[in-house]
Amino acid sequence: MRISELSATSGVPVPTIKYYLREGLLPHGTPTSATRAEYGEAHLRRLRLIRALLEVGGLSVAAIAKIVAAVEDETVPVHTMLGTAHYALAPAVETPADDEEFGAALARVDDLIDELGWQITPDAPTRTELAWVLARLSRLGRPADDEDLRRYAATVMELVTIHDMTKVSFDGPREAAVESLVVGTVLYGKVFDVLRRLAHESASAQLLNL
Amino acid sequence: MRISELSATSGVPVPTIKYYLREGLLPHGTPTSATRAEYGEAHLRRLRLIRALLEVGGLSVAAIAKIVAAVEDETVPVHTMLGTAHYALAPAVETPADDEEFGAALARVDDLIDELGWQITPDAPTRTELAWVLARLSRLGRPADDEDLRRYAATVMELVTIHDMTKVSFDGPREAAVESLVVGTVLYGKVFDVLRRLAHESASAQLLNL
Repeated sequence: MRISELSATSGVPVPTIKYYLREGLLPHGTPTSATRAEYGEAHLRRLRLIRALLEVGGLSVAAIAKIVAAVEDETVPVHTMLGTAHYALAPAVETPADDEEFGAALARVDDLIDELGWQITPDAPTRTELAWVLARLSRLGRPADDEDLRRYAATVMELVTIHDMTKVSFDGPREAAVESLVVGTVLYGKVFDVLRRLAHESASAQLLNL
Repeated sequence: MRISELSATSGVPVPTIKYYLREGLLPHGTPTSATRAEYGEAHLRRLRLIRALLEVGGLSVAAIAKIVAAVEDETVPVHTMLGTAHYALAPAVETPADDEEFGAALARVDDLIDELGWQITPDAPTRTELAWVLARLSRLGRPADDEDLRRYAATVMELVTIHDMTKVSFDGPREAAVESLVVGTVLYGKVFDVLRRLAHESASAQLLNL
């Protein structure tokens, strides 16, 4: 299809498509004349991925370029490619260097992950992120106890295994795997959070016998 | 205690305390002379609540003033008082008036809540928020199916009943109930979200046999 059709089918305006071509986010089409090129399904898939990373993930063009590079490089294993997107979605957390409470929380997170037998890379930003929240709870005088964390972790892993993992397209095109991961992580994360707050209202009403 | 001690014990600077007094967030102390007043435990509790609403909840002073008014008015039932804080923590969601997809999603949320037998007020902003995420998933070509939602809801309610509700101080001072709700909703929400993303990494590694 021509660029005008690619635009109509994807809903992405032509100038935006041209911008993505210049930035290297979208591969060039096959030239059919000096001024025309032919685009295909792969371009539609890529535009869909870029849209998810931008609108759902809230990522910058620079962050998207890195993810696209991992998608395009077939020598990058699927798990590493997914990790690129996964880590890019994590909120930035400042690591307080000489904070005792934070150090203790980080050690606790590492212990928890070991105990659960979860496979997490040593430099995963999620470790720091969890430590940061735990240190904050302690500082507010409401520390999370180990039992709580284990129960939360077990429930979460059960849900992830029976639900979330079935939504990731591991076997299809590399773009589709990353796109499904972004949508699943961000939007199902929101579904979970809203349901949790709805459950709070209902449980509170029942506890107070309303 | 004097205002200087109140500051030292709470960690809130004296000028900030004076600002809260002027804005009506903190009740005045008992005057002991023309320029001095005596403060007590209730003031410490209130400062702790304000800190949680500001720093953890990220609320504005105007939003905090409304919550404080509900805390101070003993004729406001506990559930309503907690609801004031609970709803203030919900992210603002624009309601697209004439959007068919959104309307359908909202009807679906209402049906789900009915089916689950949850006690949620008809005007809870969480209904709109969930509908908005569901409409978004549909628009991205990844609609959530009913089975998924029911399973998520059941798991979440179980966790909330056995864990979250035990952390809310329903029987103590009204300030402490609201403060525990804010910390629990926001920070345990983050704990949940990070654990979910950690579980994704581990489950993905196992699925790909790494």
